[in-house]
Amino acid sequence: MEDDVRKRIRGLGFGEDATEVLAGHFLDAEARGRTGHGLTRVDWLSTLPGLHPEAEPKRLLAEPGYERWEGNGALGYLTLDAIVRSQLETPPERSRVIVASHCFPTGVLGYWTRQLAEAGLAAALTATSPARLASPDGGPPLAGTNPLSIAVPSSDGRPLVADVSMGKVTHGDVLAGNATPAELVPFGGQQAHKAFALAVGLQLFVDALVGEGHGAVLVVARPEADPVPALRKRAGRIRLPGD
Amino acid sequence: MEDDVRKRIRGLGFGEDATEVLAGHFLDAEARGRTGHGLTRVDWLSTLPGLHPEAEPKRLLAEPGYERWEGNGALGYLTLDAIVRSQLETPPERSRVIVASHCFPTGVLGYWTRQLAEAGLAAALTATSPARLASPDGGPPLAGTNPLSIAVPSSDGRPLVADVSMGKVTHGDVLAGNATPAELVPFGGQQAHKAFALAVGLQLFVDALVGEGHGAVLVVARPEADPVPALRKRAGRIRLPGD
Repeated sequence: MEDDVRKRIRGLGFGEDATEVLAGHFLDAEARGRTGHGLTRVDWLSTLPGLHPEAEPKRLLAEPGYERWEGNGALGYLTLDAIVRSQLETPPERSRVIVASHCFPTGVLGYWTRQLAEAGLAAALTATSPARLASPDGGPPLAGTNPLSIAVPSSDGRPLVADVSMGKVTHGDVLAGNATPAELVPFGGQQAHKAFALAVGLQLFVDALVGEGHGAVLVVARPEADPVPALRKRAGRIRLPGD
Repeated sequence: MEDDVRKRIRGLGFGEDATEVLAGHFLDAEARGRTGHGLTRVDWLSTLPGLHPEAEPKRLLAEPGYERWEGNGALGYLTLDAIVRSQLETPPERSRVIVASHCFPTGVLGYWTRQLAEAGLAAALTATSPARLASPDGGPPLAGTNPLSIAVPSSDGRPLVADVSMGKVTHGDVLAGNATPAELVPFGGQQAHKAFALAVGLQLFVDALVGEGHGAVLVVARPEADPVPALRKRAGRIRLPGD
């Protein structure tokens, strides 16, 4: 199956490196049960307007505590991969904010933050997508499902990885046939205004920093402590995010 | 009433500057209907173990993209106020991550982020508090209600301010008699695992960066765009977070 996935991606015009990145993401999503971001997306790629398999993201600016990236026509997956590799090559001394324009689609955000946490960096990542969430009070869709992923390294080798979409379901769930478009509302039931507020807040935070188009904002920081093992012990048999 | 509030705060031993900061926060919370963080907290302050009215927060480290603060025995409100004033005096050229240890209690986080957004800075702030949220699957409390506030400036003078606690109710609601301790669960009903994941993720992100005790992490950034007015227009009569 894995070879077939790579073959289909190469068939869209992607080179070897990009194919590895994309296949890695889709196969991992599938393996973790995130099918809405998994193999169903391979065929979906060919439906994207303006797919430029040869495009490469560009780092426009690199300062110790800030980096500015531009997708430059590349898929968001490839932009996030380039950003992650860049952080692993040159980790921040303390912290860094990374802002990426034209960074879409981004897939399972936890896939990217997990890689940073496995290398010892705490990470928080959000990314915007087409507006699909309306207020629980009605009106037009005002925010994407805008997930927030937070990953924290652990000396036990098992980072904590939270990855929460603000939608009751994701657009990927709809694409995969696991949900209907009508279920694309902020999660939370009677308290859906909370998820709506988070979705709008994340939307505008990213919009304000990236300028235009869909984008991503990542914060990476070097931990001063190792809190995950103690939490895991306290949790006992209770499953923690990302396990 | 306002004079009475100041008098009660001074009566706890706080000086003029600290009294203004504390009264400003409590009165604003009360005026916005966040009574759990409002005047009920004035008497509550006297019940805190180790209240040091004379303590002042310290900035331990200041780099262009990173600051490290220590509450140093001061109330979290005063530490966040000092951090906000410091950012307004010396805004980041692009972005800055601010990490504060022993920063508790922090009150309504939107009160602090709003001040940054009113001065033109985008801000995202979270803070930890005693573990009160258990997993929807059971087990012991593993995370505080750990709110996340995001504020984005607007050229129309009305910043967007999202401020979401991960609890169905806040501990402040319980203190104010508006909710029972049994309601202190992650919000979201059938999808409460999402709010739980966010609460645990924020908890460990802060824990990893601050080292020990309750703390806060703030990201401030200079916007490249002004997305709020267009969203407000699209929203029409629909209320946006912070309005």
